[in-house]
Amino acid sequence: MLSQTKPFLSHPFDDDKLKEECGVFGVIGVQDAANFVALGLHALQHRGQEAGGIVAYDAEHGFNSARRFGYVRDNFTKASLMETLPGSNSIGHVRYSTSGSKGQTAIRDVQPFFGEFSLGGCAIAHNGNLTNAESLRKELISRGSIFQSSSDSECIIHLIARSYQSTLPERLKDALRRVEGAFSVIAQTRTKLIGVRDALGVRPLVLGKLADGWVLSSETCALDIIGAEFIREVEPGEMIIASANGIESSYPFEKAKPRPCIFEHVYFSRPDSILGGQSVYETRRRIGVELAKEAPVEADLVCPVPDSGTPAAIGFSQESGIPYAMGIIRNQYMGRTFIEPTEQIRNMGVRLKLNVNRALIKGKRVILVDDSVVRGTTSRKIKEMILDAGAAEVHFRIASPPTAWPCFYGVDTPQREKLLAATMSEEEMRHHLEVASLKFVTLDGLYRACGVETGRDKASPAYCDACFSGEYPVKPVDQIENGFLMKAAE
Amino acid sequence: MLSQTKPFLSHPFDDDKLKEECGVFGVIGVQDAANFVALGLHALQHRGQEAGGIVAYDAEHGFNSARRFGYVRDNFTKASLMETLPGSNSIGHVRYSTSGSKGQTAIRDVQPFFGEFSLGGCAIAHNGNLTNAESLRKELISRGSIFQSSSDSECIIHLIARSYQSTLPERLKDALRRVEGAFSVIAQTRTKLIGVRDALGVRPLVLGKLADGWVLSSETCALDIIGAEFIREVEPGEMIIASANGIESSYPFEKAKPRPCIFEHVYFSRPDSILGGQSVYETRRRIGVELAKEAPVEADLVCPVPDSGTPAAIGFSQESGIPYAMGIIRNQYMGRTFIEPTEQIRNMGVRLKLNVNRALIKGKRVILVDDSVVRGTTSRKIKEMILDAGAAEVHFRIASPPTAWPCFYGVDTPQREKLLAATMSEEEMRHHLEVASLKFVTLDGLYRACGVETGRDKASPAYCDACFSGEYPVKPVDQIENGFLMKAAE
Amino acid sequence: MLSQTKPFLSHPFDDDKLKEECGVFGVIGVQDAANFVALGLHALQHRGQEAGGIVAYDAEHGFNSARRFGYVRDNFTKASLMETLPGSNSIGHVRYSTSGSKGQTAIRDVQPFFGEFSLGGCAIAHNGNLTNAESLRKELISRGSIFQSSSDSECIIHLIARSYQSTLPERLKDALRRVEGAFSVIAQTRTKLIGVRDALGVRPLVLGKLADGWVLSSETCALDIIGAEFIREVEPGEMIIASANGIESSYPFEKAKPRPCIFEHVYFSRPDSILGGQSVYETRRRIGVELAKEAPVEADLVCPVPDSGTPAAIGFSQESGIPYAMGIIRNQYMGRTFIEPTEQIRNMGVRLKLNVNRALIKGKRVILVDDSVVRGTTSRKIKEMILDAGAAEVHFRIASPPTAWPCFYGVDTPQREKLLAATMSEEEMRHHLEVASLKFVTLDGLYRACGVETGRDKASPAYCDACFSGEYPVKPVDQIENGFLMKAAE
Amino acid sequence: MLSQTKPFLSHPFDDDKLKEECGVFGVIGVQDAANFVALGLHALQHRGQEAGGIVAYDAEHGFNSARRFGYVRDNFTKASLMETLPGSNSIGHVRYSTSGSKGQTAIRDVQPFFGEFSLGGCAIAHNGNLTNAESLRKELISRGSIFQSSSDSECIIHLIARSYQSTLPERLKDALRRVEGAFSVIAQTRTKLIGVRDALGVRPLVLGKLADGWVLSSETCALDIIGAEFIREVEPGEMIIASANGIESSYPFEKAKPRPCIFEHVYFSRPDSILGGQSVYETRRRIGVELAKEAPVEADLVCPVPDSGTPAAIGFSQESGIPYAMGIIRNQYMGRTFIEPTEQIRNMGVRLKLNVNRALIKGKRVILVDDSVVRGTTSRKIKEMILDAGAAEVHFRIASPPTAWPCFYGVDTPQREKLLAATMSEEEMRHHLEVASLKFVTLDGLYRACGVETGRDKASPAYCDACFSGEYPVKPVDQIENGFLMKAAE
Repeated sequence: MLSQTKPFLSHPFDDDKLKEECGVFGVIGVQDAANFVALGLHALQHRGQEAGGIVAYDAEHGFNSARRFGYVRDNFTKASLMETLPGSNSIGHVRYSTSGSKGQTAIRDVQPFFGEFSLGGCAIAHNGNLTNAESLRKELISRGSIFQSSSDSECIIHLIARSYQSTLPERLKDALRRVEGAFSVIAQTRTKLIGVRDALGVRPLVLGKLADGWVLSSETCALDIIGAEFIREVEPGEMIIASANGIESSYPFEKAKPRPCIFEHVYFSRPDSILGGQSVYETRRRIGVELAKEAPVEADLVCPVPDSGTPAAIGFSQESGIPYAMGIIRNQYMGRTFIEPTEQIRNMGVRLKLNVNRALIKGKRVILVDDSVVRGTTSRKIKEMILDAGAAEVHFRIASPPTAWPCFYGVDTPQREKLLAATMSEEEMRHHLEVASLKFVTLDGLYRACGVETGRDKASPAYCDACFSGEYPVKPVDQIENGFLMKAAE
Repeated sequence: MLSQTKPFLSHPFDDDKLKEECGVFGVIGVQDAANFVALGLHALQHRGQEAGGIVAYDAEHGFNSARRFGYVRDNFTKASLMETLPGSNSIGHVRYSTSGSKGQTAIRDVQPFFGEFSLGGCAIAHNGNLTNAESLRKELISRGSIFQSSSDSECIIHLIARSYQSTLPERLKDALRRVEGAFSVIAQTRTKLIGVRDALGVRPLVLGKLADGWVLSSETCALDIIGAEFIREVEPGEMIIASANGIESSYPFEKAKPRPCIFEHVYFSRPDSILGGQSVYETRRRIGVELAKEAPVEADLVCPVPDSGTPAAIGFSQESGIPYAMGIIRNQYMGRTFIEPTEQIRNMGVRLKLNVNRALIKGKRVILVDDSVVRGTTSRKIKEMILDAGAAEVHFRIASPPTAWPCFYGVDTPQREKLLAATMSEEEMRHHLEVASLKFVTLDGLYRACGVETGRDKASPAYCDACFSGEYPVKPVDQIENGFLMKAAE
Repeated sequence: MLSQTKPFLSHPFDDDKLKEECGVFGVIGVQDAANFVALGLHALQHRGQEAGGIVAYDAEHGFNSARRFGYVRDNFTKASLMETLPGSNSIGHVRYSTSGSKGQTAIRDVQPFFGEFSLGGCAIAHNGNLTNAESLRKELISRGSIFQSSSDSECIIHLIARSYQSTLPERLKDALRRVEGAFSVIAQTRTKLIGVRDALGVRPLVLGKLADGWVLSSETCALDIIGAEFIREVEPGEMIIASANGIESSYPFEKAKPRPCIFEHVYFSRPDSILGGQSVYETRRRIGVELAKEAPVEADLVCPVPDSGTPAAIGFSQESGIPYAMGIIRNQYMGRTFIEPTEQIRNMGVRLKLNVNRALIKGKRVILVDDSVVRGTTSRKIKEMILDAGAAEVHFRIASPPTAWPCFYGVDTPQREKLLAATMSEEEMRHHLEVASLKFVTLDGLYRACGVETGRDKASPAYCDACFSGEYPVKPVDQIENGFLMKAAE
Repeated sequence: MLSQTKPFLSHPFDDDKLKEECGVFGVIGVQDAANFVALGLHALQHRGQEAGGIVAYDAEHGFNSARRFGYVRDNFTKASLMETLPGSNSIGHVRYSTSGSKGQTAIRDVQPFFGEFSLGGCAIAHNGNLTNAESLRKELISRGSIFQSSSDSECIIHLIARSYQSTLPERLKDALRRVEGAFSVIAQTRTKLIGVRDALGVRPLVLGKLADGWVLSSETCALDIIGAEFIREVEPGEMIIASANGIESSYPFEKAKPRPCIFEHVYFSRPDSILGGQSVYETRRRIGVELAKEAPVEADLVCPVPDSGTPAAIGFSQESGIPYAMGIIRNQYMGRTFIEPTEQIRNMGVRLKLNVNRALIKGKRVILVDDSVVRGTTSRKIKEMILDAGAAEVHFRIASPPTAWPCFYGVDTPQREKLLAATMSEEEMRHHLEVASLKFVTLDGLYRACGVETGRDKASPAYCDACFSGEYPVKPVDQIENGFLMKAAE
């Protein structure tokens, strides 16, 4: 497979978080739309830090694109680059990485993907993951399609190319009816900006209004940055077409009960976004309240693991009455990996990002609130730092249930064996982390914090919670064939 | 004057904060000392983001140096560069900018400065500002010295070169007895690492121990990152010489009552540092407590202006009982300036960095806690964002007294006319910012938070608080001559 | 169409030479083949300076590729890049630019092109031009192929993808039977290196042997650089397959009388190459001899226009007895365009590259020997430089007939109207250039120098000489439709 | 000593040529003078390829400078850089490297050097070498001067700083009276452009006129590139001051018989320059004529070793009647070092630069004309290439006498032991190179070609020919002390 070297920014915690693979953003109907797309992608950077791309269309210059490794701020802020992306119709994409490539993405894998068809050009940007991509790719290649990337999302472009429908939106529907899995797709033709969500609505997608134009975005926080008005979410199963004629809506797929991803509330989405009608920050604060109710403990301080544990820690403090404090300080200039000078310094990686507020912690019983535990490697290091600084006791409170199953719908999860909760009970994990106590919020507690007062309805859950429950709403065909779920099958 | 173009990272708030001009760090007695210095400078990056430099000495390769514009993480993490800095004796410097140059620094102005003398080479890194530099420079040039930079700190190197003392430490004493103003200096000879603080101890400097070696640093947080033990502060007026023979201490200057900078507690130092025997975080939290006592107000939420207002906001919430909340979310990927697409979007600069948590703020009476008000430009924009998001009322509480006077001891302050508090009363400022209320902590309240229970002793204050009081402990000779203090002189 | 900005090196003479569009090079059966390909492409750099690409295959790492703008020496010499191209089977390509793009090539247009088929991957590198590419592209798109470049050569990859043959070599034959025009193609599968020339053999391609492996190259000079043995030319219409089993030869196309490009002898090929069994240097020297016979003139010095006029100038001097001299000195550090300081300096472009040897030229009658005249702009400037330096007379002798027709077989020629010889007689050109005399070698003289003692056989010429005669051996279908030959059609 | 990594371009022949260490160029009295300086330095690039620097002065912006590693064309062609060098008074320098540093120069060593004095700023650029620099440096340091580079030329700036004269030109005279060795210096004050040559006039320096302004340059070829008129050489021992008042001339040093460097005629200067009133090209052609008279041989072809052997080969052919031919072709895209693929390819370095014209050479007796033999390594490789290509015999004719002594006046020569001619007789060298014959032009022949019809006057030679004769016109004090001449002292 064609690949090339690229700079790779690695953060010490990167291997111990689930990572959203993508953010998408599109604007139609305002001049120099690509500049707005750059700003939108910047606000969505937390959804994908590896690379980004923007396509823009202009009647005079046609479709133009730019793809770059690295942060939006480091690439799409240069006038010399942005001038190559003229037009009032533009879409963009930030990505983390594909499941297939091992830490090395070719620039060809960076979306949006583009195809020149007899009906004109079309670009697409995809957030999610297709569970039948491998079978589709094989079939398309045997029929003469040439793939340029290792990305599953490229199938969509080839399916469009081979559709016999007479308009691009109809061809896109045709194509998306063939794929399985999770997708929030933004597409762009010469005159239209199109947004589609799969029938389950696993990944988010929202509609906004900016002056006379329209905006599609993974999250509302990216509408705020450009001053766009939040209109509504694109519904699960809905296709929205924005053009000079306004908005058209249709439902091209078979109806299904929505199952949006619950981990978006726990970690992926930014706290200032509104998701499913709820403040993400407030949901996280309420998880802290639930945790304090479910798993109280006597202590002197409640400290967040920055920054993602902060809202739940505030909630925990408010419910428990134990003072909230910044026991761990984050270095805001975190970046590339430094050369670690000698063996004598263990855990340098974590220290580059975090430092314990020693004077505060010394002699205290500390409750640490984190959003999730994936491999547990970071939790161990943080516990050590806190104890090294003289804490009397460390209690972990985790703002999500144990993460025990991989996600196949657009999230980068380690192999199941690497997930701490896949092989250990809560007590075994506590023992492994060597902490005074360790408690996860329950699935019911999490659902309550998300606004489902009655907790999780086992017969028909309101969210996709497969990473906690192992109940996959779409059967991951290719993945089962490839043995990714071996352990689960036992 | 020789100068060259350089990349310049500008943050939207940069013109509305006082900026520390420097951080210094040195290590002796451990292998590959420059790698430790890089880590230390990274932890001190908040003290100077414009450029950084490292010098290292090794018997085989002599003195080597590297100076770079930009963040430590982007330069001093490359093996190809670090390999050019071998040796077990190394010092480094991060800088913001000199008062002289207008947003444009030559790489020649980046410290450490180096001189090859008949007694061997010597490098120095200086945090502070010399108030008689201009007169010294004129005199030295007339006697045949050739200046390579526009930096005042270079005077020290030339004074060393012209001293008739027979050792480099004695020559350094000679040189520093000639200069006036504030200085925390780290110097390096082939076999010694030297730290000196001026007699008032305006800028901080601490001593640490790492294995068999010694460390000097502007702040303790940089000891933590490399796992060094914090031994003690270098005393005001003290010179410490670290070498294979251990530590020697002497007091080369005329004794004076110490006047360390109080703004280090308010804003400059990192919250996880220990300064003057106190936790910076805890001091800031206590300022919030003082503020809540001095200036209470009925409201629904206490929100920090991130990140520097956070500890005081926590203290204010704890004292007042009003819930603490993250009403403003900071984008952690902030970087270069984006191309602002159209006129229709005002305040893009602030939005790139901050976003209001709209769902939380709507309809609420909000207390915003910030560390200081300099020009007031940012405060206005934040207030607008909060009101746009639907807040019912906005109350500002400021964790420092009004900043009404420029600093001449190593801090970049705007001209006095640009300081909001230099021309307006508190009520005029409230009116200007268009907020429901605005209160600053009193000087006495600030001193109490800093541990002086009796408040400020007017006859003999424990700190340099010239930026608040206009009382300058060292007469800024050159500056008065140049009219910088015109207004103050009235 | 997708495009991106790129650095563009412009030479002052670039707009006044015909430019070969490509060089191709491939190696199989030796370790780290890509390093040899880099060297081969470096030796072929004169055939294309805009960009280069290399693909390499290795059983463990699959197909890997790198494409870069700029010289081979500036890109494919870095260990970090070459390490990404492991394997013992590799092909490469240097290119000038396509007729379609206006001085701006996307990196996607840089060959080799690659396709992943159900039969495995295949890369191709193409020297030449397809005269029916536009029609083919339209047809392929309508059937669902997605083009990634604006290059005509990409058609070949899609035709391979859609062929029903059961091996890649058979599919390549299938594909090449569909295309018209000139092609020397190198292709690479996992186990084979394939070379094909069109039935007329317009563009060159040679076979070499290196240790146990095989080499294909546009010219023999690139065999020399890696120490490979020159075996023979690939025959017009021949396909050669090199693999672990040795060499297989076949003739997949309808037989035709060969018509290799005569301009390769005049200018494109390097003088140290052997082409059609003849030394290119010797042919050029003989053109000078022919010129001296056909167009003698009394003069003091024979000077080449460096470097391409040198061999003919030597021949002219030897035949005429007039001393050969370096009247014009070339700056060997020629590169990017300098900022031209003021209006007062005309012709800076030429002066950057050439300088007149003033002391030598002064007062002399000078014969200038150049390889060709395209637009005549450079000839005028050189004449002015020579006269400014005090020459008594300037006589031009051109080592090719008047260039009056565009080439459609892989050479970048200006529109016909821009060719000086398309609109002027020899005498009009002499008048236009303001020189004492101007003579071109005759077509018969050129053929004689090329070894056809009887001159050009009008009924059945031994070479493609369409640029001089307007007789196109393959009808340029698309081009006539597009009006490129409007004038010719008159 | 302070140093830093830098890119280093190495050519395969670099270690087998003597290398001029510098070229200097200055312009006063024309707008945007730095652009002209960039062009002039480009024309002098053959005198130093490692690095270049330009200083420009403008009343508004003061003195500005830029120093860069690499070619002039790659650095001083960017508008963004050239805009930082405004003004109508500018000087520049290209350098090869200092004798002291081992293939690694710090950017601080790149000239021009600059000093800010009480009389105003002054920049200098120096071509040559000071034989008492080491002693001067020690003395200056002991008196408090701080050196910023490892370059000997920096002494001049410090001597200016310490002079008590009341004008900068007088201070420069003062300074230059203290130094020994060879120097052609260009200096620049705010209002003056100054050129000085040492009393022997070892290194060249010429004066030109451009519109209302003045130009100083190492060679006349750099006047041509900007269209400046060649006025005359700066005389040995002369100081010329160009300003708005025109030209002033003075002779500050003790008178001496001039001894300009004869190797400038042999190799250093460009063939299109006029040196000492003679065409460099014509002198080299005449050396070939002398060689053909002194050392005739029967052969089929006379071939130059490109490019420096070309004029002498033309002369040899003209005198001998043996046809001149390009037996060796040079790759004009020569650049960085490629990765050499395997052991099987010997001499790749040479092949990257040169290729034998095999078809021409085969079976022929070949006379190779080269400018000089230093270590002989390249000569051996070229001989092998020629024989590998099938030549019957190889005869070397060298256009200079045997190079047997190091140069201490600004030329980079290997240690004496490495000079082939220092340890071998002509016959031993012939045997070592394994060629049919080897002949060097005699010193008398060389003097005749340089216009001294009577040959070399042993009592009082017209040139410095120490590299051939070992007779040093200035005693190299430091070098003898350091043992550089050990062998010579025997």
